[in-house]
Amino acid sequence: MSAQSSRVVVIGGGFGGIEVARALGRAGMPVTVIDRQNYHLFQPLLYQVATAALSPADIAEPIRKILRRYRSAQVLLGEVERIDREAREVVLRAGRRVPYDVLVLATGATHSYFGHPEWERSAPGLKTIADARLIRSEILRCFEQAEIAEDAAERERLTTFAVVGGGATGVEMAGAIAELARYTLAKDFCNIRPERANVLLIEAGSRLLTAFPEHLARYAQERLQRLGVTVLLSSPVKPLSSDAIFVDGRTVPVGATIWAAGVAASPASNWIGAETDAAGRIRVAPDLSVPGMPEIFAIGDVALALDENGKPLPGLAQVAKQEGVYLGRALARGLPRPFPPFRYHSRGNTAVIGRKAAIFDFGRWQMKGPLAWFFWAFIHIYLLVGFEHRLLVSVQWLWRYFTYEQGARLIVDESRAG
Amino acid sequence: MSAQSSRVVVIGGGFGGIEVARALGRAGMPVTVIDRQNYHLFQPLLYQVATAALSPADIAEPIRKILRRYRSAQVLLGEVERIDREAREVVLRAGRRVPYDVLVLATGATHSYFGHPEWERSAPGLKTIADARLIRSEILRCFEQAEIAEDAAERERLTTFAVVGGGATGVEMAGAIAELARYTLAKDFCNIRPERANVLLIEAGSRLLTAFPEHLARYAQERLQRLGVTVLLSSPVKPLSSDAIFVDGRTVPVGATIWAAGVAASPASNWIGAETDAAGRIRVAPDLSVPGMPEIFAIGDVALALDENGKPLPGLAQVAKQEGVYLGRALARGLPRPFPPFRYHSRGNTAVIGRKAAIFDFGRWQMKGPLAWFFWAFIHIYLLVGFEHRLLVSVQWLWRYFTYEQGARLIVDESRAG
Repeated sequence: MSAQSSRVVVIGGGFGGIEVARALGRAGMPVTVIDRQNYHLFQPLLYQVATAALSPADIAEPIRKILRRYRSAQVLLGEVERIDREAREVVLRAGRRVPYDVLVLATGATHSYFGHPEWERSAPGLKTIADARLIRSEILRCFEQAEIAEDAAERERLTTFAVVGGGATGVEMAGAIAELARYTLAKDFCNIRPERANVLLIEAGSRLLTAFPEHLARYAQERLQRLGVTVLLSSPVKPLSSDAIFVDGRTVPVGATIWAAGVAASPASNWIGAETDAAGRIRVAPDLSVPGMPEIFAIGDVALALDENGKPLPGLAQVAKQEGVYLGRALARGLPRPFPPFRYHSRGNTAVIGRKAAIFDFGRWQMKGPLAWFFWAFIHIYLLVGFEHRLLVSVQWLWRYFTYEQGARLIVDESRAG
Repeated sequence: MSAQSSRVVVIGGGFGGIEVARALGRAGMPVTVIDRQNYHLFQPLLYQVATAALSPADIAEPIRKILRRYRSAQVLLGEVERIDREAREVVLRAGRRVPYDVLVLATGATHSYFGHPEWERSAPGLKTIADARLIRSEILRCFEQAEIAEDAAERERLTTFAVVGGGATGVEMAGAIAELARYTLAKDFCNIRPERANVLLIEAGSRLLTAFPEHLARYAQERLQRLGVTVLLSSPVKPLSSDAIFVDGRTVPVGATIWAAGVAASPASNWIGAETDAAGRIRVAPDLSVPGMPEIFAIGDVALALDENGKPLPGLAQVAKQEGVYLGRALARGLPRPFPPFRYHSRGNTAVIGRKAAIFDFGRWQMKGPLAWFFWAFIHIYLLVGFEHRLLVSVQWLWRYFTYEQGARLIVDESRAG
């Protein structure tokens, strides 16, 4: 351990935070990761938990386990109450104070309801395991209730699902719900025809997947429509209750609404009084430090970093990961400040619509269709933390591929009464 | 479908209920299964979910999926409010009425606090997936809190776990917690030594595992002690709060208490005003019908059936299963009433203490040690419903066997905030 090694505290064990801790741990330098969850979540596959394809434990790994090999790394389960910049301490809710020399904010993002937090009750978003379980239970319960409903209009409502937001998450959710209904549940019911479920994908803008080239978005839309998804563009939506939404000038009764529209950074900026953009992301310098606070860095979805052309970097796992690696290495090497600017190297952007249908955008070239889907599956398995996860997810995907079954179709009441 | 085929309604999709439905379904006779959960649960492995070894979906299968192949079988998700014997209808909470000619009560059992329902808050029992998740989160959270606790006595408390009840469930829970601490978590923490956790197995009677021969119980006790479990016999216990129990005349501070002591039948007897034993089990005739109510049968843990010698049959999965097969076949064949008496054929009784340590009692001969453990693992995998489950659980057990890892170490808050 070098003499000048400083105490680095990382808040958040997501893609960015874990990489900072790994780089420092590898160098034998002291690092503490604080998270309010005990696990690192592979968020890109969370929609598969919400649609009963995977179990939460398949895509989550205890942070302790990931960092166990590094003797200089410590993990604390705790909720941050505030940051005492004067004393250079993180204050946890239980009152415990964690001193730091360098602080890394890697607290991620949550969904945003554009100033209507009351919509969350009617239209849950998908950021945590609890969210995914709730959505999974809601979707499955709708089919169960439809099965016993005696009124045709009620059956129709209960088998109508609205997904709000035409970005990657919305497209993946809509496709996955349609496949669940069409393939997995199709033969399970007596009184309803799950394959006739209405899945609405509703986007306020004029096209889907604005982060992708137009022709890939068109392909995705066409594939969704072939799966039976109704795509509504230029259609702002207002959740009215858990039973109805208001869209295109009329009230549409729905069984469940899933919110995949807005993203807001976690409120870490408030802890330090940093300058943010409208989405709450902390504006950072080219070396990811917070301007005017050289001892504090922000990475991942909570940060607004710019590329060489001054364009904001997207809120992707690979951005957070590369930022974490960059920052962890710079800190481990004790480079002179400011560090040489961070450069993002895109490894390609991807979205999956369903069975044998995915899109990839590598900038210079694009890919779509079955090959893209196999490639997507391969990459996502490779990226999962831990060999056991890769093995379990591979087995389940292969199983599903051949049988159309989805294993995790559980409705579990969150109350003890369940 | 035979002309005289009657409408059979089964309440409960556990080991007994599923078999009744299968036998009738196979014969093409109409059967409706009502359950408040959408899944059949392989309860003998629930303690492995509670101790982070398996995921809920590994041991649960949608009832719809199990019965899908039978066109005459219907599944309703619903909570039974009451039974209208006059009209021969099951009344669901939503108001829906389900008519029956024959009714099968297969509603199982829950844990009993011997007239102290208020103890449940301090000492949760293990009957449902929600229970298992709660216990898992509590145990893991204790270690996390101990890691940040600054007081030695508090650390000691947080790493003390009390398991109340020395039957098979208690023995398996205590062994599994000790192994989780000793092997899986041992290297994960900096400030505490999880392998020194105190696991107390507390039994009011004078020995463990009264359902097993004395020498097997002694072996189990010895193995538990070797794993570091403290076995307290002849020690009635009183949960005081979630932080302490009263046992052997003194107050013992604990991190968590798990209740594995009492079992009470579900309150189905109240629906029909049937005669029960002290545990609430419905006394049934030799053909499993409820005396004086020829159209109603009770099977599994909710029933008190007697063997040839007038001894009550134990509350085991295999008893419920055999009763279900017997009843389903008798109903499917339309045998004259009363049916020839039900005979239970024991396939052996088993309990697992930990890695390479299990016991089997086959009546005439017994088995213990590593071979019994492999046999136990083999049988339990074989008994799991569905090939996918067998595969996934096999992979996870093999993985754990070689690495001592447990995959599902997730603390998930049941609240949305998680």
